Order: sequence, then C-alpha cells, then structure tokens
Amino acid sequence: MTQAAGWLGIRPDHQFGLAALPYGSYTAAHHAEVYRVGVAIGDSVLDLTTATDRLMPGRAHLFRSGSLDEFLAAGDGCWTQVRDDLTRWLSEDAFRSAIEDLLVPMQKVSLRLPFTVADYVDFYASEHHATNIGRIFRPDSEPLTPNWKHLPIGYHGRAGTVVVSGTPVRRPCGQRLLPGAAGPEYGPCTRLDFEAELGFVVGSHSHLGEPVSVGRFTEHAFGVCLVNDWSARDIQAWEYVPLGPFLGKSFATTVSPWVLPIAALEHARVRPPSRDTELLGYLTEAENWGLDINFEVRLNGYLIATPPYSSMYWSPAQMLAHMTVNGASLRSGDLYASGTVSGTEPGQLGSLIELGWNGTAPVTLPDGSARPWLQDGDELSITATAPGPGGTRIGLGTAMGCILPATPA
Amino acid sequence: MTQAAGWLGIRPDHQFGLAALPYGSYTAAHHAEVYRVGVAIGDSVLDLTTATDRLMPGRAHLFRSGSLDEFLAAGDGCWTQVRDDLTRWLSEDAFRSAIEDLLVPMQKVSLRLPFTVADYVDFYASEHHATNIGRIFRPDSEPLTPNWKHLPIGYHGRAGTVVVSGTPVRRPCGQRLLPGAAGPEYGPCTRLDFEAELGFVVGSHSHLGEPVSVGRFTEHAFGVCLVNDWSARDIQAWEYVPLGPFLGKSFATTVSPWVLPIAALEHARVRPPSRDTELLGYLTEAENWGLDINFEVRLNGYLIATPPYSSMYWSPAQMLAHMTVNGASLRSGDLYASGTVSGTEPGQLGSLIELGWNGTAPVTLPDGSARPWLQDGDELSITATAPGPGGTRIGLGTAMGCILPATPA
Repeated sequence: MTQAAGWLGIRPDHQFGLAALPYGSYTAAHHAEVYRVGVAIGDSVLDLTTATDRLMPGRAHLFRSGSLDEFLAAGDGCWTQVRDDLTRWLSEDAFRSAIEDLLVPMQKVSLRLPFTVADYVDFYASEHHATNIGRIFRPDSEPLTPNWKHLPIGYHGRAGTVVVSGTPVRRPCGQRLLPGAAGPEYGPCTRLDFEAELGFVVGSHSHLGEPVSVGRFTEHAFGVCLVNDWSARDIQAWEYVPLGPFLGKSFATTVSPWVLPIAALEHARVRPPSRDTELLGYLTEAENWGLDINFEVRLNGYLIATPPYSSMYWSPAQMLAHMTVNGASLRSGDLYASGTVSGTEPGQLGSLIELGWNGTAPVTLPDGSARPWLQDGDELSITATAPGPGGTRIGLGTAMGCILPATPA
Repeated sequence: MTQAAGWLGIRPDHQFGLAALPYGSYTAAHHAEVYRVGVAIGDSVLDLTTATDRLMPGRAHLFRSGSLDEFLAAGDGCWTQVRDDLTRWLSEDAFRSAIEDLLVPMQKVSLRLPFTVADYVDFYASEHHATNIGRIFRPDSEPLTPNWKHLPIGYHGRAGTVVVSGTPVRRPCGQRLLPGAAGPEYGPCTRLDFEAELGFVVGSHSHLGEPVSVGRFTEHAFGVCLVNDWSARDIQAWEYVPLGPFLGKSFATTVSPWVLPIAALEHARVRPPSRDTELLGYLTEAENWGLDINFEVRLNGYLIATPPYSSMYWSPAQMLAHMTVNGASLRSGDLYASGTVSGTEPGQLGSLIELGWNGTAPVTLPDGSARPWLQDGDELSITATAPGPGGTRIGLGTAMGCILPATPA
C-alpha cells in the first residue's frame, strides 16, 4: 500500500485515503462567502474548484458553484474520469507542485450541505428494524405487514429540512396523545429518537414514464452518505394513520458532509441476505448490491450501537428500481435513504426505540445516566467504514447533531 | 364594472378579468427557447418579463428567468406592489401604448410549469372525502381515524413529478394484489383515478425551528392553483400500510399553469364549516380562510362533478401552521395541496373512487360508456371559479391531462 499512498503519505488506515476520495462543499474560514467543492484526503481538503481550473479546465464549470449539483448531473462517464484524474493528481509526484497549495487542513473549513436535495425518499429496508417496530407498535399482529417481503416500502420525506452534520436540531413541538389522555395535547416531543441510515445520492436524471431497471443502478446513483432520520416518536404515533409519517420526521434530517462515490465501494459489495419470498421480475438482481458497511453510533461520545449494513434485506438497486417502476422520474440531487440499519444482535440496533425497547429498557451510558429517549444537549453521531483495497478500510465521515431545547409557542 | 374593464375591454364575466391577474410561465410559438413570465388577461397573455423591463426596471430581475421563482421569493410587499402596478397598466389609458404590443394571444403560447416545486405536501382536508374513503377501505371501523378532527392529516409527495396541465399522463405499472390472489402481480394499474384539489404556493421561506402561525398565512402563501393528484388505487392499496401512499401517487401530479394570487380571493373568503371538536391553540384562527371556490370536473368534456371548496374542514392557514408547528422550514416554491375536494351531495365528489363507489357503481357518461376507473385516452380536466368583485366570478384556469396506455417492462 505504500505506493498507493503517493506523495501525500496518507497512512493506510486513514478513513480518507486514496481509495475513498469523497466529495463535499465547503467554505474556508477566511472566505466564508466563497463556496468550493472539496475532496477529503487524509486530514485535508483538496480545493477541487481551483484544482480543476488549473488541471482540467474543460470541466471547471462543474465545480464553480461550489456545490456538487453540476457534477452530479454530468453523468457516470464524467464521474469516472474525474475520480481517475483525482487519483493520479494525489498519487503521482508530477502533480504535486500543481496542487499541493490547494490542500486545506480539514479543521480550517466549514462543511456545507454538499448538494441541493431534490426529492427525499426514506425506505424501510431492514427486516430486523421493521420486525422490531412491528412488535413494539402492533404486538398482537404479525410484525411484518404482508407487503414487506414483496417490495421495499418507502415514503417521501421533506427535502427542505435536510441539514448537514453539525447543524443543531431543535426538539420539535407538536400534537401527541399521552397514555390515558382523552385527547391530544400540544407540547415538546417527549420521545425524541435518531435513526442511523445510509443515503444514496442520485446523479443522472431519468425521464418521466421510463422506469430505471435494477441493472442501471450505477448509471444513476452517484454515491452514498450517512443519514440520521431524527424521529419524534410521540408525534409520529398520533399522526401516522392512515397516510404515514409527516411531522414526526420532517423537522430535520442530518446528512454527512462527504458523498462517497459508489465506485469507492467495490470492495464492500456482498450478497444480500437470502430471500424467502420470490421476487417479481423488476426486483430480481443479477449483481450483488448488498454492502458490507459497519456503522457506529455514539451518544455523547459513548458507543451505543454497531449496526451492520450487510444485514439489509433490500438493496439500493432494488430500491431505485421500485421507486421508478411506476414511471416516476429521477432528478439529479434526489436522495433516498435505506431506513434504519439494525442487525440481529442487541448491540446492532440503529434507533433508541429499539435499543431501549420503546422506553421500557432505557440505554444506560457509561456515565451512569439512562436514555429512554434523547435529552436536550445530547450529541448523537453516526460514523461508518467499509472495506477498501488490500485489507484497509475507508470511511464515510460523520453525521452528527446536538439537541437544542424546544421553544414552545 | 365598465370602468374597471379598462382599455382592454375585457367582458365582465371573463375568468381572467382585471380582478384575477394570475401569473404563469410561457414560451411563444416562435421563440420556444425563451422563457417568459406572463399574466393572463382576457384571452391574452401579457409578457411581464418585457413589461417590467420597460415600466418597472428596478424589479425586472424578478421576471428575467421566465419562471416565477424569483418573484415568489421576493415577499408579500413586492407581490402587492406588482399587482397594484399591473392593475394600473391594464386599466389606465396612459399605459396602453407602453404595453399593448406585449399582449400575446393565449392560443399562441405554450404554458410551462410556472415555478420550481420545492417540497410538495398533500393534505386530506375534506371531511366528506375522508369519510367516504374510510367507509370504502375500512367498512368495519369508524370512517374517520381518531386524529382526523384534531389535525390536518398530510404527507409528502413527489415534487419532481409535478407537471403542468396538458402533459400526458402514462398509466403506471407496479405491484398490486388482485382480489383472491395468493401474492402480488406486476402490471398496468387497473384502477386509475383522479383527485380534484386546490394547491397553495408558498412564496416567502421561513427559518428552521420557527413555526409559522395561522395569522401569518398571507406573509408566506403567494397563491393558488388547481391540482390533480392522479392516483393508482390498486398500487396504493397494496403498498400504503404502514408508511402511507408512495408509488400509487408519485407517477404524476398535474397543476394548472396559472397561479392566482391569494389577494385575488378576497371575495371568496368564507367561514369554514363548524367544528365539533375543540382545536389546540396553534390551529385556532381569528380570520376566515374558508374559500368559496366552485370546482368543475370534466371527463372527455362531460361534466361529472362539481365539488365545492367551501365544504373543506381544514383551512389553508391551518394546514400551513400545522405543517410548520414542529419547526419544519418553508422554502419558496413549496406546494401544498388540500386533498380531494368532496361535498355532501353525490354530484359533488372529487374522485372516481367516490363517484363510482370503488368501482361498484360506475359513472355513466352521456355517450353511454361507463367509467369505474379512467381508461386509456380519457381526458380529465379540472376547472374552478371564485367570486370576484361586484357579482363577477374569476377563474383559476384548467388542470388537464390525457391518459396514455401503459408500457409494461
């Protein structure tokens, strides 16, 4: 691996080595009004906006706005070429003098929402999570609804409240029906939760009326990010029948600032869990798009869960095919998330409602405090790593948020 | 009314008289690549992009893109001033020479989607519609869910598949469970439906974490349009438990090309239906935002329903306050729709599932044909009018779509 480390000398176990190269958007401390596209490399950010001006002027327009929007729309041929060029610039000595001054220390930049979110869809692709939620909310029924193993269940969320990691999350107020109460009350959420998810960022659009088949996943999906689908369980429980989650989810969704290209996940691809229900043709995959990504969830710095993405029942290619089977078109910037990642073991659950079994068995932190639900001031962070080349691991960065107290009307 | 008709001489009963002045986006037949903002006036469209260049250069930047996006974001003070100026230009002789050449016959323009839809939310605000749907889908339960009279139920829809009137709608394919079948099948929708709704277009954004109270409705809501929330009832029925409608709705949503300012509806404001359930404070209104708008639904030209918007239980100010009570922010271009408008009478139902009672009592057209559901080739159009000044009526234009046959994979 020493050769691949190149002139930068990134240590092989760094999450942002040459095999990762995720893209983001940032402002430098001394130029807060100037947005740039950056690439995370080691503990630095490469100013890709300026680097393309110097080394790839034909593509410089893709990065000039400082957002990933134009690059996402440029298509998979362009994504491959830019990644190939970046790898050469950062590993071959010949490029060192041209770009070395464009490496900014990570701690000197402010990371922004990397792209304009078009539509946001949230799936429900973990069998273990869906089973746990079914057991908690519908203890007298089969935990999985009859449709669950036939299609990846999903719904649209609020694109306008997707925020970048580090954005504080204010505890929402709203209606909830307290146990035994005759009617709903208004007040701050009493059951605030997180959901650790993987997000898929759509690059190339598709046309209205033309489904995107499972085999065309990599033509349209550009990359992945981490997602925290913050959830107000009390608001959600009262509102969600019959049309699904709305205000219980729409107050904020946190994403990691770095979008890791799908191409960086080639060593993470695994066969999804075996299916015990035959799938309709449009959901049948020839390729393996299970992903061996290990999540870590920390509350105030304490590791509370390690959800394994490899346990997800539905693959991202299947989600994309299902989302468009009715002819719904994709736009560049569409974001779809996997739903909570939960494994089979008690320590592998990706939400507090599961870890604390709906508040009945609160999570106890090493400092002795208990968490049936999130408290004001809590900091929740999600990180994840995936296998890279030669036994290394590459990282997806962090999706972090702190809870601010509610401000009731 | 003769004076108000001004130099244009619009007849007082025209839907686009001086009291209407809705905004849209168009291309002229001979300049298909040039987008302009237009104002409907009589049988013409005023080229507002050029008119502001001539008469209001300080605001010309708001209309230069040819979309309403910049104007929507400019805020309610600007909306009022532009409407006042437009009224003067189109009624006072002094302005005739400056703008007369900017009136384009309506039939010579192509109308486009008037604004970039940010987030799209669909409510369920008609008590009669929700009751009918409850009776059809859950015949053994109370038709309204326990939350229905406490909050306006809503969910997020797909913003990227909102299309302008006239766009053909391809019959969607997808999974549905046929009666008596052991498992789902893939195929074209067999129960294609429309839903006649009113849409509210958000102009001014709001900040994350800051609810918008009912009293601030007109600061944020710019105008209204007509909406057809096309629905695939078989796909919807199989997918919607537990997370709500998804592919049964996301293949297309048609909007009328003209956005009528809220200010044009001052004569349409009425008290909403009386409430039999006490509301929480954040939903309590001091002003009346019921709207006396009469809908007409035509199938292949035959009038099949006349839903009265005045019967809607939840007002648009209440929907806006509820949508943001959890701190969710608004963006300029957000669109929220009322849900199907249905009255109490058999001829006042705003969907085929209600008119034909889930296919059991198909609508018979004057040509003798029956419609349990929409057929390929059917043309469905929604129009509406509201009271204007002095006993006149103003129009909201048309939301029309034709059904194309499915193209199964």
